[in-house]
Amino acid sequence: MTIREQALSAKKAAARLASVSTEVKNKALAAMAAALMEKKDEILAANAEDVKNARAKNIRESMIDRLTLNEKRLKEMSEGLLQVASLKDPVGEIISGTTLANGMTLTKIRVPLGVLGIIYEARPNVTSDAIGLALKSGNAVILKGGSEAILSNTAISGALADAAYSGGIPEGAVQFIKSTDRAAVKELITLTGLVDCVIPRGGAGLIRTVVENATVPVIETGVGVCHTFVDEGADYEKAVQIVLNAKCQRPSTCNALETLLVHEKAAKDFLPLMMQALKDNKVTAISDEGAFVYAPWGERATEEDWATEYGDLRLSVKIVKDVDEAIEHISRYGTKHSEAILTKNYDNARKFKQQVDAAVVYVNASTRFTDGFQFGFGAEIGISTQKLHARGPMALPELTSYKYLAEGDWIVRK
Amino acid sequence: MTIREQALSAKKAAARLASVSTEVKNKALAAMAAALMEKKDEILAANAEDVKNARAKNIRESMIDRLTLNEKRLKEMSEGLLQVASLKDPVGEIISGTTLANGMTLTKIRVPLGVLGIIYEARPNVTSDAIGLALKSGNAVILKGGSEAILSNTAISGALADAAYSGGIPEGAVQFIKSTDRAAVKELITLTGLVDCVIPRGGAGLIRTVVENATVPVIETGVGVCHTFVDEGADYEKAVQIVLNAKCQRPSTCNALETLLVHEKAAKDFLPLMMQALKDNKVTAISDEGAFVYAPWGERATEEDWATEYGDLRLSVKIVKDVDEAIEHISRYGTKHSEAILTKNYDNARKFKQQVDAAVVYVNASTRFTDGFQFGFGAEIGISTQKLHARGPMALPELTSYKYLAEGDWIVRK
Repeated sequence: MTIREQALSAKKAAARLASVSTEVKNKALAAMAAALMEKKDEILAANAEDVKNARAKNIRESMIDRLTLNEKRLKEMSEGLLQVASLKDPVGEIISGTTLANGMTLTKIRVPLGVLGIIYEARPNVTSDAIGLALKSGNAVILKGGSEAILSNTAISGALADAAYSGGIPEGAVQFIKSTDRAAVKELITLTGLVDCVIPRGGAGLIRTVVENATVPVIETGVGVCHTFVDEGADYEKAVQIVLNAKCQRPSTCNALETLLVHEKAAKDFLPLMMQALKDNKVTAISDEGAFVYAPWGERATEEDWATEYGDLRLSVKIVKDVDEAIEHISRYGTKHSEAILTKNYDNARKFKQQVDAAVVYVNASTRFTDGFQFGFGAEIGISTQKLHARGPMALPELTSYKYLAEGDWIVRK
Repeated sequence: MTIREQALSAKKAAARLASVSTEVKNKALAAMAAALMEKKDEILAANAEDVKNARAKNIRESMIDRLTLNEKRLKEMSEGLLQVASLKDPVGEIISGTTLANGMTLTKIRVPLGVLGIIYEARPNVTSDAIGLALKSGNAVILKGGSEAILSNTAISGALADAAYSGGIPEGAVQFIKSTDRAAVKELITLTGLVDCVIPRGGAGLIRTVVENATVPVIETGVGVCHTFVDEGADYEKAVQIVLNAKCQRPSTCNALETLLVHEKAAKDFLPLMMQALKDNKVTAISDEGAFVYAPWGERATEEDWATEYGDLRLSVKIVKDVDEAIEHISRYGTKHSEAILTKNYDNARKFKQQVDAAVVYVNASTRFTDGFQFGFGAEIGISTQKLHARGPMALPELTSYKYLAEGDWIVRK
């Protein structure tokens, strides 16, 4: 099948899937969870082959780690599908409604988006996560994974599609693009009228390619140059712990901290503690002139550093005059992802909450909380950094749209 | 100023506008309404010049009509701004919130989109509508109108921007692109990071150009190939009235009817009445084989007709076997705008409501009701035909996004 034929098949399935009951969808998800365990030998063998090929290409170890499956990871994927089954089905929710003066009842009801395109990189667990979330929210899905994981993804998506169709999901609802050609991405993101929304998950390069070339609607995800501003008079010891957590707990994630902003009047008391803690935790401080004196063992920041998502154990540090300069810096270099203020000052907290334009604005907490599971959504398909449609962690309701039902007693417009 | 400089200025203003109070915005809107009347001589003179130039270019009469302003139309524009002032401000609404197990309070609060780009054609009233709706919802706006209305739009946007800034709206929030060059559109829709959303308002060609070339998020509007299905056993006399209303009340609008689908068992009793009524109202019936025998004075439909938005007094007519075939036809040729069933059969109505995928699905009413004012929204910036972000008539809340405020007691992620 060509990619267009796959999309046509997905669109046809989506039309029927929109009215499949929650009961059927949940049973299918349970069957899919079981299928992953039943076919584990086959999936792990395919994955071993992918890993072997990746090693032969000298792909870097962190990517090999993301690519590698084992029994434990496969079990987590299977449990993830059961978890999705347990979530509330968003489809069919009556969002609001009214009766107009002319007697017409107007009902706003939640419906699936239709056909989702998910474009991702080397992590095979995204394959099962995305299929599970798409089907539960009544959407057909077309997957385009990274070429390194092609055998793993083929095995996983095949096993899940078979189990889904046996369980009552309309055939064609799960499409996996087998081509590893880059042109396949371009084709998928220009299928206007067939694909309702594309979500790229991956590095900045992938996301830029999709945003720049798509003609179908896109939800931009992921790039996070996140800041934490330590105000004058903050609890400096707790602030150290929050900064360490935001930077070090998992530095490769998009909600990890990249730039620390420090009030000039906090510098003298806070930065000695902070810089020592960073050093103890193997974090390289990349400082502006004022902060450098507290960490001369680190590096000096250039203009480029303020706009860089390191994704590793580097942290840029800058001293600012006040909360206004902090907000201004964030407005200039931030990516509208997650931004935090650590303060005891009510007015500054309020100003920061009001004026910082980001998906999540924190007071006295680590930016690492920006996550669908941490927020209690029970799932996450990605973190939106755009303002259209959905912002921040996206779970099931963010994969839906709505329609209006308008019912009248044989009425015409006057 | 270049277009990029205008966008930078708009972005700067948007950051401040986001926290301007409802009180200030409403006062500014009142000042803007007054300014339109105070500067009416200047605006009407500019418009007269536009109309003269358009006539010299032999532009068709329907477009001249849309272009022409007079005192009455200007007064309506002024009253429209006062009407927008009276609407509820969506910004700052607490959409939902919760306290998580770790004590973090999570608040989802409505915020402006930021910078809107509005691209439209010859109607100068869109200039004041768009500025009013954008400012009330806390957004800066960049306008790119049709070249035919350039003098009118320059005068209107100038008068409104002056009044807005005097009334406390941050300077730069209203940008009007003076270039009539087509390249200006291309530049506006690729200003990633500066423009948060572009809404094209106009014909299918304009919309296609924007969708295909934009790299910033777009809300697709307007194209409507709308259907009405007359079921077996419907109230045929009332059905005739609804079809006439949907087709004839204002044929150029996107919610006007383009294709009539008739149950094969309704044809014998319904179509003689319907075809006569169409003839009496100067509507040309463009029929399939089965329907043609009831209106041999009309034309025969080709495949192309089913996909055509006539926008005038033509109506394609097709006989279908049952509600399923009607739904299938709509799924194939519809544009997800407005679709109606006229029936007394409960099961068929329910099936149609569930299975038809459109912004508005009607039972026993005219498709002409798809409109922000008719729906009681008090305003309309356009009708979205995509599923992402907003669907159907868009008013103030559809011009907003949200952000999460996450407040903790100095907490870290475990």
